[in-house]
Amino acid sequence: MVLYNITDTICALSTPPGSGAIAVIRLSGKDSFTICSKLFQPSNPTFSWRKALPYSIHHGSISGGEEPIDEVLISIFKAPQSYTGEDVVEISCHGSEFIQQLLLDELVQNGCRIAKPGEFTLRAFLNGKFDLSQAEAVADLIASASKSSHDLALAQIRGGFSRKIKELRQKLVDFTSLIELELDFSEEEVEFASRSEFYLLLDDLEAELTALIQSFSLGNVIKKGIPVAIIGKPNVGKSTLLNTLLNEEKAIVSEIPGTTRDAIEDTIVLEGFSFRFIDTAGLRASEDQIETMGIDRTWTKIEEASIILYLFDATVDSYKDVETALSEFGNILEDPQKRLILIGNKMDMLSELPHGFKKFVEHETIFVSAKRRENIHMIAESLLKRVKEHQISDGAIVSNTRHLEALKKSLEALQNVREGFQNKLPADLATIDIRQALHHLGEITGEITTDEILGNIFGRFCIGK
Amino acid sequence: MVLYNITDTICALSTPPGSGAIAVIRLSGKDSFTICSKLFQPSNPTFSWRKALPYSIHHGSISGGEEPIDEVLISIFKAPQSYTGEDVVEISCHGSEFIQQLLLDELVQNGCRIAKPGEFTLRAFLNGKFDLSQAEAVADLIASASKSSHDLALAQIRGGFSRKIKELRQKLVDFTSLIELELDFSEEEVEFASRSEFYLLLDDLEAELTALIQSFSLGNVIKKGIPVAIIGKPNVGKSTLLNTLLNEEKAIVSEIPGTTRDAIEDTIVLEGFSFRFIDTAGLRASEDQIETMGIDRTWTKIEEASIILYLFDATVDSYKDVETALSEFGNILEDPQKRLILIGNKMDMLSELPHGFKKFVEHETIFVSAKRRENIHMIAESLLKRVKEHQISDGAIVSNTRHLEALKKSLEALQNVREGFQNKLPADLATIDIRQALHHLGEITGEITTDEILGNIFGRFCIGK
Repeated sequence: MVLYNITDTICALSTPPGSGAIAVIRLSGKDSFTICSKLFQPSNPTFSWRKALPYSIHHGSISGGEEPIDEVLISIFKAPQSYTGEDVVEISCHGSEFIQQLLLDELVQNGCRIAKPGEFTLRAFLNGKFDLSQAEAVADLIASASKSSHDLALAQIRGGFSRKIKELRQKLVDFTSLIELELDFSEEEVEFASRSEFYLLLDDLEAELTALIQSFSLGNVIKKGIPVAIIGKPNVGKSTLLNTLLNEEKAIVSEIPGTTRDAIEDTIVLEGFSFRFIDTAGLRASEDQIETMGIDRTWTKIEEASIILYLFDATVDSYKDVETALSEFGNILEDPQKRLILIGNKMDMLSELPHGFKKFVEHETIFVSAKRRENIHMIAESLLKRVKEHQISDGAIVSNTRHLEALKKSLEALQNVREGFQNKLPADLATIDIRQALHHLGEITGEITTDEILGNIFGRFCIGK
Repeated sequence: MVLYNITDTICALSTPPGSGAIAVIRLSGKDSFTICSKLFQPSNPTFSWRKALPYSIHHGSISGGEEPIDEVLISIFKAPQSYTGEDVVEISCHGSEFIQQLLLDELVQNGCRIAKPGEFTLRAFLNGKFDLSQAEAVADLIASASKSSHDLALAQIRGGFSRKIKELRQKLVDFTSLIELELDFSEEEVEFASRSEFYLLLDDLEAELTALIQSFSLGNVIKKGIPVAIIGKPNVGKSTLLNTLLNEEKAIVSEIPGTTRDAIEDTIVLEGFSFRFIDTAGLRASEDQIETMGIDRTWTKIEEASIILYLFDATVDSYKDVETALSEFGNILEDPQKRLILIGNKMDMLSELPHGFKKFVEHETIFVSAKRRENIHMIAESLLKRVKEHQISDGAIVSNTRHLEALKKSLEALQNVREGFQNKLPADLATIDIRQALHHLGEITGEITTDEILGNIFGRFCIGK
C-alpha cells in the first residue's frame, strides 16, 4: 500500500462536526489500547485493558498531561470483532468542539495519526469485513436523503448486489474452465464444450450484464433524484408550476432535514423517491444572443432529463401549436428512456378542455391551473407512475458509475469472445477476453484492486468512517 | 412537575446535527428496553434484554415495520448506573440525516417522546446524579471554546463549586441551630450563643460570600471572554491594530474550530484565555448627530470593558495631548476592576520614543507599529498579565448570573441579620433572615428549586443532553 499506511493506529471524530450533547472519537489499530491507556483513568480501579470484555463500556476521565480534559465513556472492541477488524476504541465525550480538538491533539501526541476520509472503512475492506461494493454503499447510505436511495444503499451493504456479481463471476469461471479444458486437449481436436452450449452461456451472461447496465439509469436517478425538465414557451407559467409543485410538497420535503436544495435545481420527495426539477429558459426562436445561449442550455437539460414536462398555455395554444412545438424536438422524444408529459396550464380561465387534445394518445396530457393549484396532484401521480414502471423486482440495481464502467467493459470483452468464436479464432484468444471480463467484474467487488481505485473510492468518504 | 413529565421515555439525537460517519440517538426512561426491543433485531440470537450486561454493546439491525432502517450498535445502561439514573439505550447508527430522522420517527411511533433541551441532564439532576450547579456546568462545558472556560466548567462539574456552597450552608445551619436553641430557652434569658461569637461567624460568612461575588467578574470574562475596548481619536490606527492583533493570533484561533466570531466583536485566544475585542468609534467632539451617537456608544463600551487600550498617534500626539484625553475619562479610570494600557502607534515613522511619556508610570505604555506588526507581542503579554493578576488560587469562581444573584440575595439577608442584632431586635426575626440566606444558597445547588428555575436552566441546553 502506498496511499495508506495500514500499520498506523488512526483516530478521527466520527460524529458530525460541530457542537452537540456528545461526540464520538474513534481509534483503530494495533496500538489503540496502549495509546488510550496513557490518557484514560478508569472510574473502576479494577479495570484492565487486557481483561476488559469486548463490546464493553467503561466510565472514566481523559487527561492530557496533568490537565483533565473530560469525563468520558469508552467502548472497547477487540480484533477481529470490530468495524475495521482491528482493535477499536470509541471515546464518547461531551460534544464541545474544544474538547473534540483537545482529545484529538492528545491522541496524536501519543502516537495516533488522524485518519484520512474513509480510512476506517478501507481497513474493514482490507480485513475482509465486506467487499468493495459494500464499502462504497456505506458512503452512499450516509449521503442518502430519500427512502429509495437509502433502501438501495442498505441493500447493497447487505450484499445483494455483491452476490449478483459473484454469481456472474462464477458462471464466467465455469465457462473458462470448459474452454481451458478444451485447450489442454487441443491436439486431439476434441470439443468438450460444444459451441452451441457456449453461445447459450454467452447469451445468458450478456443478458444479465445488459440488464444490470440498463438498471443504472434507475439506480442513478434513485441516488441523485430523477431529473425532470419543465420546458415550454415563455410565459406559459413554468416557474409558477415549479413553485406550486415545490410548495405543494413542502411538508414532505421538510420531513427530511438537510434535503439539499441546489441553487438552480430543486428537489421534492414523493413517496420516498426524489425528483430533481430543472428549470429551463422558455423555448422560442430568438435573435437575442444571450437568450439563444439560454435556449441552447435548455436543449442540454432536455437531453439529461428522464422526464420532460412540456407546459403550454391552454388558453392560447391550440392542438396544432403543441403538435408543431413537439415536432421540433425531433427524435429526442423517441428515446425509450425518456417520458414526455404534456401539461396545459391556466385551466382556471377556461370552462372546458380545449378542442383536439384528446388526439394525444401517445403522450399523457394533464390540464392544470398552477396558480390556483388545481390538478397538481395529477402531475405528482404521473411522476410516480413513471418510476414504478421502471422498478426492477430482482433488486440488483447499479447506482455507481464505477460499477457501470466495469460492467460495460466486461460486456465488451464477452462480445469479443462471441466475435472470436464466430470468426473461428483459436480458443486461447477467447480465454484472454474472458479473463478481461472476469478482471472487470472483480474490480467491482474488490477481488482485483489498485491503490488508485481505493484512493478514488475512499477519498469520497467523510472523515471518521 | 408541570413543565416536564418525568415518567415518559424520552429520545433525542445526542450527536451534533448534520451528516457524519456515525450518529447517536439516546433513549432514557422505564420503557427504553421495551421500546427498543420492538425495533432491534440482534445479530446474536442468544441476546436478551433482561440478561444483557449493563455497559454492554450489541450489534444488530433496526427496522420500522417490515422495512430495514439501518445496521446499528446499541449500548445498554441499566438504572441506576446511567447518565440519567434511568434505563438508557444509546443507538449508534450511520450518520445520515435521513436515517436519524427515520429512527426518531420510529421511536416516537413506538411510545417515546422527543426529549426537550437538557431533559436527560434534568433527569440526572432529579435522580440525584449531580446537583443543579453541576448540571449547569454540563451546558457550560459543551459551550466552552477556550481552555480557561473549559477548565472552569469541568471543575464545576466535578463539584468544586458545589462543595464551597455546601460548606457555607453548613456554617449557616450551625449558626441557626445556635440561635434556635437560644429561642427555645428565651424565657430563661440564657445567651447560649454570645453575640461576639455570632458577629465573628457573620464576618466570616460575609467575607466568603463577598469573595465569591467578586469572583464573578473573573468567572464571567473566563466564560464569555475578557472584554477589551480599543479606543482613541479617529485615524490613530484602531482598526489596523485590531486586524493586526487578530491576524497575529490567527493560528491560535484556528486551532479551535467554531470559535464564534461575532459580527461586530472579534475574539482571540491567548494561552487558553479568550479576549473579546470591541471596536469603537473614534472619540472626538463632534457636531454630527450620528457620529455623536456612535461616540456615546463608545462610552458604554468603555464601561463594559475590563481592559481599555487607549491608542494614540505617536507621531502627532504629545504627552500633553494624551494627558488631556485621559482626563476626559474622569473617574472611569479609577475603577479598580479596569485596567488601562496606553499604546503609541506609528512608531515606524519615529526614530526615538516621543518626549515626556515616561511620566505615565501609573499606566503601562507600549509603543508599536500596527502596520509593520512591531511590538504587537508586548500587547499580548500585557493582556495576559492582567488576567493572571486576577486569578484566584482557591478555585471557587462564580461564572453564572443565576448563582451571582442568589449569592447577592444571600449576602443581603445576612446583612439584615447583622442589622437586627445591632438594633437589638428579637432573635426570632434573625432566624427568618437566616432562613432566607439558606434558601438562596439552596437554590444554587438545587436543594430548593421551582419549575421556573428548572425551565430556565434546562431550556438553555442543547437537545440530546
